[in-house]
Amino acid sequence: HYVDFPVSVVLPAGGTGERTGLQTPKQFCCFLGRPLISYTIESFERVLWIQTVVVVVAKENIGLMTDIIQRFQHKKVRVVAGGSTRHRSICNGVMALGEEGKPKVVIIHDAVRPFVDENLLYQIAVAAKEQGAAGAIRPLVSTVIATTSEGYLDHSLERAKYRASEMPQGFRYDVIHQAYQRCTESDFEFGTECLHLALQYCGTNAKLIDGPPSLWKVTYKRDLAAAESIIKETLSQSACLITGRWEAGVTLANVLQKAFGALDMELNVMPDLMGDNIRYLLRDWNFIQLSVSHSCFSEVEALLVVLKSEKRALLHPVVVISLHLSSTEEPSTSRRAEESAALMGLASTAKLQNILLYGIRLHQPGDTEQWERSALRVAEIASALIGDRNPALVGQLLQA
Amino acid sequence: HYVDFPVSVVLPAGGTGERTGLQTPKQFCCFLGRPLISYTIESFERVLWIQTVVVVVAKENIGLMTDIIQRFQHKKVRVVAGGSTRHRSICNGVMALGEEGKPKVVIIHDAVRPFVDENLLYQIAVAAKEQGAAGAIRPLVSTVIATTSEGYLDHSLERAKYRASEMPQGFRYDVIHQAYQRCTESDFEFGTECLHLALQYCGTNAKLIDGPPSLWKVTYKRDLAAAESIIKETLSQSACLITGRWEAGVTLANVLQKAFGALDMELNVMPDLMGDNIRYLLRDWNFIQLSVSHSCFSEVEALLVVLKSEKRALLHPVVVISLHLSSTEEPSTSRRAEESAALMGLASTAKLQNILLYGIRLHQPGDTEQWERSALRVAEIASALIGDRNPALVGQLLQA
Ligand SMILES: [Mg+2]
Ligand SMILES: [Mg+2]
Repeated sequence: HYVDFPVSVVLPAGGTGERTGLQTPKQFCCFLGRPLISYTIESFERVLWIQTVVVVVAKENIGLMTDIIQRFQHKKVRVVAGGSTRHRSICNGVMALGEEGKPKVVIIHDAVRPFVDENLLYQIAVAAKEQGAAGAIRPLVSTVIATTSEGYLDHSLERAKYRASEMPQGFRYDVIHQAYQRCTESDFEFGTECLHLALQYCGTNAKLIDGPPSLWKVTYKRDLAAAESIIKETLSQSACLITGRWEAGVTLANVLQKAFGALDMELNVMPDLMGDNIRYLLRDWNFIQLSVSHSCFSEVEALLVVLKSEKRALLHPVVVISLHLSSTEEPSTSRRAEESAALMGLASTAKLQNILLYGIRLHQPGDTEQWERSALRVAEIASALIGDRNPALVGQLLQA
Repeated sequence: HYVDFPVSVVLPAGGTGERTGLQTPKQFCCFLGRPLISYTIESFERVLWIQTVVVVVAKENIGLMTDIIQRFQHKKVRVVAGGSTRHRSICNGVMALGEEGKPKVVIIHDAVRPFVDENLLYQIAVAAKEQGAAGAIRPLVSTVIATTSEGYLDHSLERAKYRASEMPQGFRYDVIHQAYQRCTESDFEFGTECLHLALQYCGTNAKLIDGPPSLWKVTYKRDLAAAESIIKETLSQSACLITGRWEAGVTLANVLQKAFGALDMELNVMPDLMGDNIRYLLRDWNFIQLSVSHSCFSEVEALLVVLKSEKRALLHPVVVISLHLSSTEEPSTSRRAEESAALMGLASTAKLQNILLYGIRLHQPGDTEQWERSALRVAEIASALIGDRNPALVGQLLQA
């Protein structure tokens, strides 16, 4: 799916977030340390054929938005000041695109719909170029009813004939430009639907395209929890086990892969992250570093150095678990205290780089059955740490 | 708000949950170990003036539903077999209510809207009695559009004139009974809206009542995460610190209350759970048991016994944190191993009773500043454990 005509995006982000009941507007609410709008921008930056993303924010948030772009190193973004209504803001964004050689198609999206995928963007862009306008739709979840002015039921609509109009929407540049030049002050003030303006002022009946449920709009407080859970799930589907050159590593890797599999997590196993294996460093968000000797954090330290130098945790927190396979004896009191302190110290430093470091200690099991039971415990604890991604528990040494 | 006329509930729970993309129908999906429908039933059982809740399930789920009622000790519920469509199922429920002295008002709700509150039920019941029918509504989140048969925009509706029709809805028994007696096979087969039947077959224009966002319908996979997060948040707003008779308990309680306060959690402090203090046992979902001597789990054991005998964890998992305030020395290796094993053993048994036991070890701080820093660490770790409520981490001894 490649698009061979210029496409740019306008992202109105001026909302005040009243419906979540929170102080911060939703687009600036943080998920795992990053504002929602940065996730949305990331969704567009990943798409190679999209040229520019114009983010339209209220004047008082231009500084904040510029900081976000710098901090998360967004490359395709331009910030433009918004107007007093949604349509004025979108119009500002469209006009700003016109200044730098107008694109063929403009996609308009919401800052608070972070999970838009390339396939839908492709369909919208192509349909917009062909038909002049295109928009994503979803089936209605509830029956829609018309009310009397006194608050009684007037009639209900036949659900099958109607759809919810969602985002993204796409327009040929000349269509959306003309719609905004011809529309009235009242449209600018009270209108909500760009597709309606294209119909009324350009005679363009938008092509409607079924979108996936993931493009819903983060509207209520519960939606913040839903969005966080989707982000965490995406980050928690696999982990990379680095065995080092330990003999026990091979046995452990085999039983651990099965145990993680039983929890629906993929476990990739490799001896180190050198050569070709470096691709896992760039692909995965979770690492389990095996060590066998006592109090040996040198492998973990090396891993942390690479993760930092690759800026791996710029967009998402990375989980690193130091897995200690200890011989049958308990460590001495002083050695254990040293070990705990060393782990906690490393974890505090790593946290500043958005890397969440935890420890798991496992007594080397005796027979095969014990190996399997222990592996399942390790997998359960590791997958809990990875899934919850809780910064308050970093530096803890857990017992498998 | 008391209702002085008989009100009963019909809860259709026959849905197959296609939209979540899961195998289990949504109403039977478990949240913290309990099916969603049990939460919905709990919402109605809490309301004293509601008499009977008729749950309508597909024939093949009657056994499952009966088990759920028994396991979670629901008292007001009757199970009825559903029909082939939503309206046939609701009709079966309404007719079943007629067999045992019909109520004045029937409230119809969805099994997958677990968070309905008493105030809205009151408004719906009273309006239904006065007007014959009443239904909850919400503003539209998206613009609604009419489509052409070829998949193009026909026109968009003016958002202000329309509402989403939600649940609960209420009907005078005679109104809903008559509506179902007069309606056609086609209504039974394809209709979705009870308010519509009341209008068409009884001439009753339902009174519409604005509902809160919390009554949304659990429809998509993301809604499962949102529901779980609401349930967890409800359980995590406070904790009860049991200090015992330790001298250090008073100092610790003071600094801990401030530290929890900074994390927006309320901390109730008491020496034990005897006498009047027992009310906290019945009110709170989270307990922190302080102990000062080494390896002393006797207080925690006593607490676990009471929680079990009171069936405190029947509906929700209860969190118990054993907080060890240790003197400055490290424990000996053998003592620590004993301690860890004892905690893990207690936790495994408690988990079978839906009680999640964790340990936090704190070195007794030296000066005031150290006390405050330590208290903040304890509060952070405890609130992480309470908020995540992760069963995979029970029995772990964490370091503050
Ligand atoms: Mg719209
Ligand atoms: Mg309905």
